[in-house]
Amino acid sequence: MSTPWHHRYAQRTQRMGSSMIRELLKLTQKPEIISFAGGLPAPEMFPVEAFEAATQRVLRQHGSEALQYSTTEGYLPLRELIVEKMGRYGIEASVDNVLITSGSQQALDLIGKLLINPGDLILTEQPTYLGALQAWRAYQAEFSTVPIDDDGLRIDLLEEALCGGPKFMYVLPNFQNPGGVTLSYERRLALIDIADRYGVPIIEDDPYGELRFEGEHLPPLVVLDADKLNGRQYTNHSEPHSYFKGNVIYMSTFSKTLAPGLRLGWIVAPASVIQHCVMAKQGMDLHTSSFVQMVAYEVAKDGFLAEHVRQIRQVYRERRDIMLAAMAEFFPPGVRWTQPKGGLFLWVTLPEGMDSTAVLQDAIAHNVAFVPGATFYPEDAQQTNSFRLNFSNATPEQIWEGIGRLGRVLEKVLDPVLV
Amino acid sequence: MSTPWHHRYAQRTQRMGSSMIRELLKLTQKPEIISFAGGLPAPEMFPVEAFEAATQRVLRQHGSEALQYSTTEGYLPLRELIVEKMGRYGIEASVDNVLITSGSQQALDLIGKLLINPGDLILTEQPTYLGALQAWRAYQAEFSTVPIDDDGLRIDLLEEALCGGPKFMYVLPNFQNPGGVTLSYERRLALIDIADRYGVPIIEDDPYGELRFEGEHLPPLVVLDADKLNGRQYTNHSEPHSYFKGNVIYMSTFSKTLAPGLRLGWIVAPASVIQHCVMAKQGMDLHTSSFVQMVAYEVAKDGFLAEHVRQIRQVYRERRDIMLAAMAEFFPPGVRWTQPKGGLFLWVTLPEGMDSTAVLQDAIAHNVAFVPGATFYPEDAQQTNSFRLNFSNATPEQIWEGIGRLGRVLEKVLDPVLV
Repeated sequence: MSTPWHHRYAQRTQRMGSSMIRELLKLTQKPEIISFAGGLPAPEMFPVEAFEAATQRVLRQHGSEALQYSTTEGYLPLRELIVEKMGRYGIEASVDNVLITSGSQQALDLIGKLLINPGDLILTEQPTYLGALQAWRAYQAEFSTVPIDDDGLRIDLLEEALCGGPKFMYVLPNFQNPGGVTLSYERRLALIDIADRYGVPIIEDDPYGELRFEGEHLPPLVVLDADKLNGRQYTNHSEPHSYFKGNVIYMSTFSKTLAPGLRLGWIVAPASVIQHCVMAKQGMDLHTSSFVQMVAYEVAKDGFLAEHVRQIRQVYRERRDIMLAAMAEFFPPGVRWTQPKGGLFLWVTLPEGMDSTAVLQDAIAHNVAFVPGATFYPEDAQQTNSFRLNFSNATPEQIWEGIGRLGRVLEKVLDPVLV
Repeated sequence: MSTPWHHRYAQRTQRMGSSMIRELLKLTQKPEIISFAGGLPAPEMFPVEAFEAATQRVLRQHGSEALQYSTTEGYLPLRELIVEKMGRYGIEASVDNVLITSGSQQALDLIGKLLINPGDLILTEQPTYLGALQAWRAYQAEFSTVPIDDDGLRIDLLEEALCGGPKFMYVLPNFQNPGGVTLSYERRLALIDIADRYGVPIIEDDPYGELRFEGEHLPPLVVLDADKLNGRQYTNHSEPHSYFKGNVIYMSTFSKTLAPGLRLGWIVAPASVIQHCVMAKQGMDLHTSSFVQMVAYEVAKDGFLAEHVRQIRQVYRERRDIMLAAMAEFFPPGVRWTQPKGGLFLWVTLPEGMDSTAVLQDAIAHNVAFVPGATFYPEDAQQTNSFRLNFSNATPEQIWEGIGRLGRVLEKVLDPVLV
């Protein structure tokens, strides 16, 4: 063999997207940089001692069971905890509607494996979560997009996009990544209505829904869809093989409420969909770590998680407030940004024609970092004048200082006389 | 919408194979059954106390780092430990040649994602590991097979099969699952030679290689391939971007030496292949649990794992010996079986024309279980007269009793007068 056989496969991984996230994660590790680039939770909020105690209890009470192979569906007490947790948001599922995944990234991969054939069109928000694009590019999906504004997906532009015949729609209704915006109640109802009319399923990705700082929680799409179909579509918990009908697959994660290093997420869907997911997951990793699932359950149970989430909300709200105040103080005129009511991110828009990737180079020279907006578009280099800021992973002092640095960079960039 | 949209996708998961493994795992949980069906390690060998101590050290020394997002490649000290471990078997890799996966099942899925296009032909041993078939059916692979005998893959039949133009070959050289046989040194050399001549890459799956009870360790295919290409192809550890050329992707796992509930495996491959794998894995689960990787490293380090593997070998050797002795005692004439020199499994062949799935029904009625051989063939219902026995997951007493029960079932089945 003269040339290595594996060179032939380079093109496929190029389709899977650049290594931008990975490179940025590396960047955030340099101590001199104040990074608003990653999507990392605040590590000082991780309940490290609770994990230590929980691990000890798991190993003493369950012993080798915590280290043995287990079922693909996931650890039953953890699925029960998720059912209860979902119930608080109006999602009346049973354990047969819940599959534990290795992070919600695996849920995205799993959905791609089940649903996408090469060339299939997927409809996403514009901008949207980079990880979804990565997962689905690997299945040779094509993408069409509908812009978002301060109330989320532009429903007025949806029907035209649906005429392209997408396989499914992918929506982050709460504190969207990267936009920070939330889909309004009226638009949720309209979205469900249109999706039903066109027969196009919705993938509802909700990693941040619990991290609302203010205002009222809005019902998940999966609930509105069920309401529309027949009042209450969900059967109750006592039924052994309950399922709900419906047009929505819901997914969430423990990454933003407990700890991302666990790699624990879940899918809520009709039981028949979950059964297909289970078969697909068997071929992907057999099951998610039983050890991690048992430890997570042991940490989360008895109301600990709900109380812990309340503390995270307080801390993140304070950080968002300081970031917004610092932007008002330091950012020059002509720069706009979203006002997220929860989550981890906000979205900055520079005057038209500006290139945020070029700004990032200046910013890094001043030891501050963000993610250029172009990263979050399926198409290449669309809307280059925006960028994403994360407010969960820096202290209030770092946020004030970092936004100050960024403000000075933007002032120079926006004032050609000073350049 | 009149019919649920997701019914359209039922066919795809049917392609992914039956839920046989899952159903069998459920079966093994019934306490009255002595099960030789699963592929479970002996849980009483799991170092539960070492895990407890290691988890405490990880959380006290690393704190929130153990719970945060980390890099896709895997925890560097764990990759270094794997490099050292591989070195003891002659595989001179560097950390750039190692990717941590969520169990070796994920490595199989990852290889499918990178290499398989719909309709691609994959060459496997006959019988072969069910999980590989499951992983690759999802990418719409087709399979061709070459039989094994007591010395592993029948090299004399290989070239004919290669004329079908397979994308790659999948081989388990050590204590094969399900056959229990080991590829001889002469055949390893011949395999490398033929693979190189035909330009067909080899996926070398080695979950059991360390569990050799007797005889000399045989060099991995990845080593023989490198030797053939140019003496030593591997660069040394001090080179920042070392890679090795070669025609072999090697994979292994901590599931059989430390604990399967961790879901920790690894791939060793040329650095350029690893880079593609990293990009693909990003879209699959971002990374394997950082918590689990750090705990596994903390347990395995400082020679603990090597010593622990010595103990596992002793225990499994004793169980194999008892199973072989019990079979000699209780199995009727006309039944043959393999003599594994390591691993977890052996393979039983009944007289031609017999159906081991029917025998399993009788066996379950007598509270003993195995996996029918047909499960391990890509084609439907080939060679129905064989079955797999696992000897790692039952005590010596259970093995003697269970093989006794199975012997009585086989005696009845083989003697039509008694039926």
